[in-house]
Amino acid sequence: MAAGKGEKHWIIPDGYIPEISSGVLESHESICVLNAGREDALLTITIFYEDRDPLEEIAVFVPARRTKHIRTKELQAGGVAIPHGVPYAIEVVSDVPVVVQYSRLDATQAENALMTTMGYPLK
Amino acid sequence: MAAGKGEKHWIIPDGYIPEISSGVLESHESICVLNAGREDALLTITIFYEDRDPLEEIAVFVPARRTKHIRTKELQAGGVAIPHGVPYAIEVVSDVPVVVQYSRLDATQAENALMTTMGYPLK
Amino acid sequence: MAAGKGEKHWIIPDGYIPEISSGVLESHESICVLNAGREDALLTITIFYEDRDPLEEIAVFVPARRTKHIRTKELQAGGVAIPHGVPYAIEVVSDVPVVVQYSRLDATQAENALMTTMGYPLK
Amino acid sequence: MAAGKGEKHWIIPDGYIPEISSGVLESHESICVLNAGREDALLTITIFYEDRDPLEEIAVFVPARRTKHIRTKELQAGGVAIPHGVPYAIEVVSDVPVVVQYSRLDATQAENALMTTMGYPLK
Repeated sequence: MAAGKGEKHWIIPDGYIPEISSGVLESHESICVLNAGREDALLTITIFYEDRDPLEEIAVFVPARRTKHIRTKELQAGGVAIPHGVPYAIEVVSDVPVVVQYSRLDATQAENALMTTMGYPLK
Repeated sequence: MAAGKGEKHWIIPDGYIPEISSGVLESHESICVLNAGREDALLTITIFYEDRDPLEEIAVFVPARRTKHIRTKELQAGGVAIPHGVPYAIEVVSDVPVVVQYSRLDATQAENALMTTMGYPLK
Repeated sequence: MAAGKGEKHWIIPDGYIPEISSGVLESHESICVLNAGREDALLTITIFYEDRDPLEEIAVFVPARRTKHIRTKELQAGGVAIPHGVPYAIEVVSDVPVVVQYSRLDATQAENALMTTMGYPLK
Repeated sequence: MAAGKGEKHWIIPDGYIPEISSGVLESHESICVLNAGREDALLTITIFYEDRDPLEEIAVFVPARRTKHIRTKELQAGGVAIPHGVPYAIEVVSDVPVVVQYSRLDATQAENALMTTMGYPLK
């Protein structure tokens, strides 16, 4: 019913990969993307830090009419990944309209903590 | 006071039904809909996956001036339900304006984790 | 710096007062309102249910340049309060622009779970 | 890719610094700001209370193309900090466009609880 609706530019200011995992589940963050349209989406992700230049040009592919829940710890640009235990922020640019949600599972303690928010769309 | 206000099209990219429950409460997700208007709402829900075609045409009814907190594990189209432990995304289309919020309770560990966000409205 | 900015109409579809509390903290929900403006705000809150008519005309006062974190269990209209353990939804109408956020602390288990979201503004 | 996009005025109605910490992590809140633009940002933060006048003119600097995850317990105006265990609300005004997200980690109990939301942008 939706034909490629959403936005092409999304911001998530609070990125953080927890350093510790315990219990059944592993600490992780996901950038959850829905490409509800009929065209494949190519995402270009930039990672901003507090104290150094951004990590740029991370490419992720999301096929038409599919979702992708991207683990931030798997993102890389030129062999460089996002360090754990460091505050950062995320910018997602897509060549077709998509919707972006961010979620974090913190399993630092054995009992889990969860948080989620929609990304902030730039129009 | 509100007369059917809201939007007719909502997206939730981060859907996931936890596989495990322990403790007092059961792991679950809810799509929480408010139909504050004077006309009944017919919702058509589509479920998008990472690796297969969408599950389409799931119908849900929300009466006028009522809320409905829809458990995702009860959704079905043609006898097919959403598998547990699989990342997915949700599209809600309504024939009248409504407001949609998504919440998840994860009771994988005995102590619970909660997360919530408004759906993303497509206008 | 802000002079009464925000919206006059807010929706929160996922309301729920947990029935159980354990540990140090008590389970509760808050409707958090900021009235950053120079005029006092009079809120009119409506509670929508799944299976019965709404509870209407709950009045709450938020002074100019003050916040109020309203506990839902203290809301009443004509001596009737919101039942615990029942899914409901919230509509907030204000006579001046405010901003509304919703948070829930679930202490069903001794270790707490938290969730929050901005209300959905109707414009 | 983004050139200073976002908004200059953000509201977070639900501020609260937990009084207790236990376990590995410390209870805290963060105001997470992304300045994706090419100009440095000067933020002016106001803290609103339920029962007293606001704490005004807190200045925070966020360099161009950097993020800053601001701990609320470190904010001060004229040597006055935000009291712990008290409900409050946050207003952020920036001289250039930024994006603001709010997150809280509550470690009152040993097992953590997390919540997050985008700030509410005033346009």
